[in-house]
Amino acid sequence: MEKPLSDSRSACPIACTLDIFGDRWTLLILRDLFLGPKKFSDFESAPERIPSNILASRLRRLLEQGFISRHAYQERPVRYEYRLTRKGISTGPVLKAIVIWANSEIPGTIRPEIIYGKPQTDAGTDT
Amino acid sequence: MEKPLSDSRSACPIACTLDIFGDRWTLLILRDLFLGPKKFSDFESAPERIPSNILASRLRRLLEQGFISRHAYQERPVRYEYRLTRKGISTGPVLKAIVIWANSEIPGTIRPEIIYGKPQTDAGTDT
Repeated sequence: MEKPLSDSRSACPIACTLDIFGDRWTLLILRDLFLGPKKFSDFESAPERIPSNILASRLRRLLEQGFISRHAYQERPVRYEYRLTRKGISTGPVLKAIVIWANSEIPGTIRPEIIYGKPQTDAGTDT
Repeated sequence: MEKPLSDSRSACPIACTLDIFGDRWTLLILRDLFLGPKKFSDFESAPERIPSNILASRLRRLLEQGFISRHAYQERPVRYEYRLTRKGISTGPVLKAIVIWANSEIPGTIRPEIIYGKPQTDAGTDT
């Protein structure tokens, strides 16, 4: 396995994916967005209690990498809501595989509707 | 979402999965084991260059959680090789979903045979 990707550890698709999502929080942000657009405070009220500095950092990275877009819903002070882009929605099958695995192998996990409903997308910023 | 699982952040299957695999390394260890039993040094020679302290810590956790088993292949000093258990093999569809996603969305990732071949299992320790 060579290293054709400039900022990746290898050309392995699993390693490259973990370079993006290999932490305890990023996929939870995408999970929440599959239910519809979210404000910063919406993410903070999820049961996992994401720390706000981690949330801000992950949102910034997801924006830079084109998984989400943001839209001002208020001026002075400006406040944003976040939406999945096409690229963000493309992660659905990965989340679904995780849910199926966890429901089978981790006792007590709920069977959510989260990723099975029609996702809310951002038709404007289809990166 | 309540918290029925004693050591989890929530009952969300995605959150519970990230409590186990939410880092940049653990799934790479499973990836390598889908190709067959591995020695400690085999993992270290993967292109991502996992640091040996992280490798030791992740192997210990995967053993404790029943994803892998170990078998001494040498005495004085004792040396082990590691294998997937049934529970370890159960992660195959998640790895496959990641590979399919990455091959589609991350340019330059290779299309490996890694997770499509017949995995090597440990018939003895089927936890």
